[in-house]
Amino acid sequence: MKQLKVGIIGAGRIGSLHAKSICYNVPTAKVVGITDVFAENAKKVAAELGIEKVYADYKEMLADPEVEAVLVCSSTDTHADIAIEAAKAGKHIFCEKPVDLTPSKVEAVIAAVKEAGVKLQVGFNRRFDHNFANIRSMVNDGKIGDVHIVKITSRDPEPPSAQYAAVSGGMFIDMTIHDFDMACFMAGSEVTEVYANATCLVDPAIGQAGDVDTAIISLKFANGAIGVIDNSRRAAYGYDQRVEVFGSKGAAMASNDTPTNVVYMGADGVVADKPLYFFLERYMQSFRDEMLQFIDAVLEDKPVPATGVDGLNAILIALAAKKSVAEGRPVLISEIK
Amino acid sequence: MKQLKVGIIGAGRIGSLHAKSICYNVPTAKVVGITDVFAENAKKVAAELGIEKVYADYKEMLADPEVEAVLVCSSTDTHADIAIEAAKAGKHIFCEKPVDLTPSKVEAVIAAVKEAGVKLQVGFNRRFDHNFANIRSMVNDGKIGDVHIVKITSRDPEPPSAQYAAVSGGMFIDMTIHDFDMACFMAGSEVTEVYANATCLVDPAIGQAGDVDTAIISLKFANGAIGVIDNSRRAAYGYDQRVEVFGSKGAAMASNDTPTNVVYMGADGVVADKPLYFFLERYMQSFRDEMLQFIDAVLEDKPVPATGVDGLNAILIALAAKKSVAEGRPVLISEIK
Amino acid sequence: MKQLKVGIIGAGRIGSLHAKSICYNVPTAKVVGITDVFAENAKKVAAELGIEKVYADYKEMLADPEVEAVLVCSSTDTHADIAIEAAKAGKHIFCEKPVDLTPSKVEAVIAAVKEAGVKLQVGFNRRFDHNFANIRSMVNDGKIGDVHIVKITSRDPEPPSAQYAAVSGGMFIDMTIHDFDMACFMAGSEVTEVYANATCLVDPAIGQAGDVDTAIISLKFANGAIGVIDNSRRAAYGYDQRVEVFGSKGAAMASNDTPTNVVYMGADGVVADKPLYFFLERYMQSFRDEMLQFIDAVLEDKPVPATGVDGLNAILIALAAKKSVAEGRPVLISEIK
Amino acid sequence: MKQLKVGIIGAGRIGSLHAKSICYNVPTAKVVGITDVFAENAKKVAAELGIEKVYADYKEMLADPEVEAVLVCSSTDTHADIAIEAAKAGKHIFCEKPVDLTPSKVEAVIAAVKEAGVKLQVGFNRRFDHNFANIRSMVNDGKIGDVHIVKITSRDPEPPSAQYAAVSGGMFIDMTIHDFDMACFMAGSEVTEVYANATCLVDPAIGQAGDVDTAIISLKFANGAIGVIDNSRRAAYGYDQRVEVFGSKGAAMASNDTPTNVVYMGADGVVADKPLYFFLERYMQSFRDEMLQFIDAVLEDKPVPATGVDGLNAILIALAAKKSVAEGRPVLISEIK
Repeated sequence: MKQLKVGIIGAGRIGSLHAKSICYNVPTAKVVGITDVFAENAKKVAAELGIEKVYADYKEMLADPEVEAVLVCSSTDTHADIAIEAAKAGKHIFCEKPVDLTPSKVEAVIAAVKEAGVKLQVGFNRRFDHNFANIRSMVNDGKIGDVHIVKITSRDPEPPSAQYAAVSGGMFIDMTIHDFDMACFMAGSEVTEVYANATCLVDPAIGQAGDVDTAIISLKFANGAIGVIDNSRRAAYGYDQRVEVFGSKGAAMASNDTPTNVVYMGADGVVADKPLYFFLERYMQSFRDEMLQFIDAVLEDKPVPATGVDGLNAILIALAAKKSVAEGRPVLISEIK
Repeated sequence: MKQLKVGIIGAGRIGSLHAKSICYNVPTAKVVGITDVFAENAKKVAAELGIEKVYADYKEMLADPEVEAVLVCSSTDTHADIAIEAAKAGKHIFCEKPVDLTPSKVEAVIAAVKEAGVKLQVGFNRRFDHNFANIRSMVNDGKIGDVHIVKITSRDPEPPSAQYAAVSGGMFIDMTIHDFDMACFMAGSEVTEVYANATCLVDPAIGQAGDVDTAIISLKFANGAIGVIDNSRRAAYGYDQRVEVFGSKGAAMASNDTPTNVVYMGADGVVADKPLYFFLERYMQSFRDEMLQFIDAVLEDKPVPATGVDGLNAILIALAAKKSVAEGRPVLISEIK
Repeated sequence: MKQLKVGIIGAGRIGSLHAKSICYNVPTAKVVGITDVFAENAKKVAAELGIEKVYADYKEMLADPEVEAVLVCSSTDTHADIAIEAAKAGKHIFCEKPVDLTPSKVEAVIAAVKEAGVKLQVGFNRRFDHNFANIRSMVNDGKIGDVHIVKITSRDPEPPSAQYAAVSGGMFIDMTIHDFDMACFMAGSEVTEVYANATCLVDPAIGQAGDVDTAIISLKFANGAIGVIDNSRRAAYGYDQRVEVFGSKGAAMASNDTPTNVVYMGADGVVADKPLYFFLERYMQSFRDEMLQFIDAVLEDKPVPATGVDGLNAILIALAAKKSVAEGRPVLISEIK
Repeated sequence: MKQLKVGIIGAGRIGSLHAKSICYNVPTAKVVGITDVFAENAKKVAAELGIEKVYADYKEMLADPEVEAVLVCSSTDTHADIAIEAAKAGKHIFCEKPVDLTPSKVEAVIAAVKEAGVKLQVGFNRRFDHNFANIRSMVNDGKIGDVHIVKITSRDPEPPSAQYAAVSGGMFIDMTIHDFDMACFMAGSEVTEVYANATCLVDPAIGQAGDVDTAIISLKFANGAIGVIDNSRRAAYGYDQRVEVFGSKGAAMASNDTPTNVVYMGADGVVADKPLYFFLERYMQSFRDEMLQFIDAVLEDKPVPATGVDGLNAILIALAAKKSVAEGRPVLISEIK
């Protein structure tokens, strides 16, 4: 069996998740080494999973001829530079989202990848979620007909600290970015205009830090469809992740996944489970499946299912949404480019 | 038992519906007479339901001292004038929506009613729907906490003729007006700003007639909440009427009513009923209950549950939505007043 | 419009329900008179609904040539005798269930009706329930294929007093009788054998009175299908009424009706409505529809949808179930006849 | 980390499933060797999963001092003898169900295990299913109150060949055995009496081979509760696995797991997914979790969650059910012992 040799850059939450996922569930790949700016993190993951090499830094990994592909799971501000270096070193790249907050840097990554002739897949794992992938199939199969309306509900169980929100680039960039990609994925088209109706209702500290925590974002797509995303940083009942696509022939709706489907009927009502707690629980299957498809795309030289351009588009929409809030008007994507 | 004596102006679909509803289900009221610009219509309904008087016109009804309250179910363009005359004649008024397309005329009705000291209830029947009224109770009881987001899905099973859409004032005025009222009802607050992302995807003839048939309307409320309505003139699966209110303590969601709750499991899938066909089926209970409450408000001198101001607010939002589409920008309600 | 003139015998809960139902919702019938062993009850209902005649007793009603059909809503022990007299008087008969606890008396009613050439419909209202009627249609239309298994869940919200259970003939006769009829209705076949696994778990007083309050009743049908009914006199969450029919092509399942379809999602879980409280709420639509069909069967000389033989079959199954509990073995219906 | 060294006897469908499960998902155990009567099977699994030793036969495995525990996944008729030898060799035992078709042989296994002081867990994986385990927790936590009724629906997507049904001991032994264990698990009590209402409606060849394919099995439990299982060898819509427990305080119901929770609404109805295809898909999580608990029970010297006595009880009920069908009467478990 052919096995892709991968190195993982970053041994934090998402890096170790991918490491475990490959070790336990992806027989077509092997993690040959790992690195982290905090060496202890890399060593711990390596010990736990039996990974042979712990590199001093990512440059050492890129210099290792055994490594065929890298997973860029470091902090967001380093994604683009590392990805460009990795491309130059001839490594295939799986890069966590967002690729970068600056469109021109994302474009530089895309260019470097193109020049080097390597694969680049961006970590839009939700495309691989069993529910959402199923709706997308219905769209592709024509069951929905022409897409008229895409609706996404995306609410987190707990807000981040106000500091995080300030550093991350804000809600549209650290949270809604997934929804922006999902909207394009479902509509089968690019966004052309954004109007963000956003406010701070969950935590005043977030507002003081200059960000929003509650939003309704209205979208126009190039193919004529329209869309809406609603976000909250805190849903009392947990992680709320729903998608609906409505078109000329019908509609498809995905509701939340739950730990069980047991219903309890008692004197106080009929009670069902709350949604799975947060993204690690909710999207575990999609994290595994995006990795399987990345490995497969490299080994079999197939197109990757989430490209650098997809990553660029999502960041453009996020920046348009920020501008829309700041200026209180709809913003064209062409204004951002 | 006290019985309110009512007269019905207009024997069309909605007038005869209210006539039947009172005759069969409202023991506290009696329909003493009916009138219609097409006398035959009035005679037919009177014969069927055993209504004693058929008036030559509404002026004759207003002159009848036996009549204590009138139901204004005539064509939209006559609502305001008739309501003002009815107020001057000292009759209590139930007026179908919209009261009028011109805000100043609605204000004139409100003023006339105030001066005459009579009751005015506007026909926002959906406030009385079992599902939506239940969500509103949860909002009032504090189960939702502070309201953050109101979401309304409202899609018709079939588009009207393009001619109708042109005459009616357009989708926002003949269809979304209910949703605008529902949004305020659920948020417990007035709308301050509207951005309508609207297009024509269902029937090109509607677009040629200058109207839209598909829309996502983003709202801001005076209390800080935000909201969104999505509309389509045609859902392949029928009449889609859903409401969701999300707040600091949780969320409540109403799904569609269906003819049965039977689920069929066969080789091709698990199949459930489509929604009840259209508004007559879906909202029959609410049409009856709004009438019960109107009768009760008059007999017991209680506040009406849907006022002239509610009627005015809904038309202001509809006009703002039209302006928003025309100008491609968010529109303040204060710009319309 | 043709209008059937009916008289109502018994002005208790079920008699007044039918009286209201006809007055408000059945334009093809007119209640011309009512009677009750407690004259006050009859007078009260007559006054409330504007019924003209209050008869001293049912014999007076049967002697009134204006009366074309009677509704036998008196106490169970009088059903058969009154029905026989009504048949001899040439009146069509709607008889509440059970017709009688003694099969030979039910047979006597059937014979009297046949001889008189009048219609007899037995009050198995649940056949007309929107959900169950829909499943039956699927059976008839061949969507289920050959019926293999019929499953009925039937649980009351509160047990009756132990005294009532003793007088009524016991749970199988006052409660399960509906389920026995439903089982035959769904299987499209008669029951041939019964095994009742029954016990007293809800209220010891019921057991001391010689009855059961919890049961699983296993059935064999003449057409080869098998079935099961589970009963409880008390479900903490209310009135539980579900039916499932499974066959060679698939299965259909009816769940409980609820006051609303609102779902509340909060920190403690996802909560939906409990079932409609009890039979008056749950089966109001079916009480009305059985009456519409009875009136129609008489006026249009059509077959009635629930016959005297259906009434006889249900009582035979109930008696077999009692014998099965007493003797701890399966009992053939042929043993009871 | 402590790691239990296990050997797997039988490399067929269930043996290789457990092998994969341990290799990929159970870090606390290591498969040191495998064996199969068809050596090729064992070699193939060993190669795929990197298992070091392939034993010539199970005796060689039992003689290997490195092996601490064995998984008995061989053909049913060999389970008991191998388990007894394994106990004598001092190995802990995970034994697939049924332990044996003859109660005395199951008792011999229990005795051997007791004498050797090793652990024995029987492969009732469904106890570990997320839905059913959740209901059991509710029972244990008192949310259901006293258990009154246990209901299990268990239907396969496809019947086995008539030959298999004849060899396997029949439907009650190869299929319902899981449901018998589940019934005891949910009731928290042993079965005392069984009445099986069973027939052949799916495939006449099964009937000709002397078995049934459709059944309703009525149960009495030692604690006073009652129960019912309904089985079919073929549900057109797939694998139907539902459990309901009803008690004095309420009820809990588990519905089927599905590949996605997407609902499609189109002109022909509202369509949801069919259940997961068959036991490998439906119970994958429970196969893994039973293994985790077995390993944990051995390593930490805890009680196993499904004992030899549980295995004995299930086979006794199955034999009682067969006798009940043969003799057409309820059968006491005490008659079988």
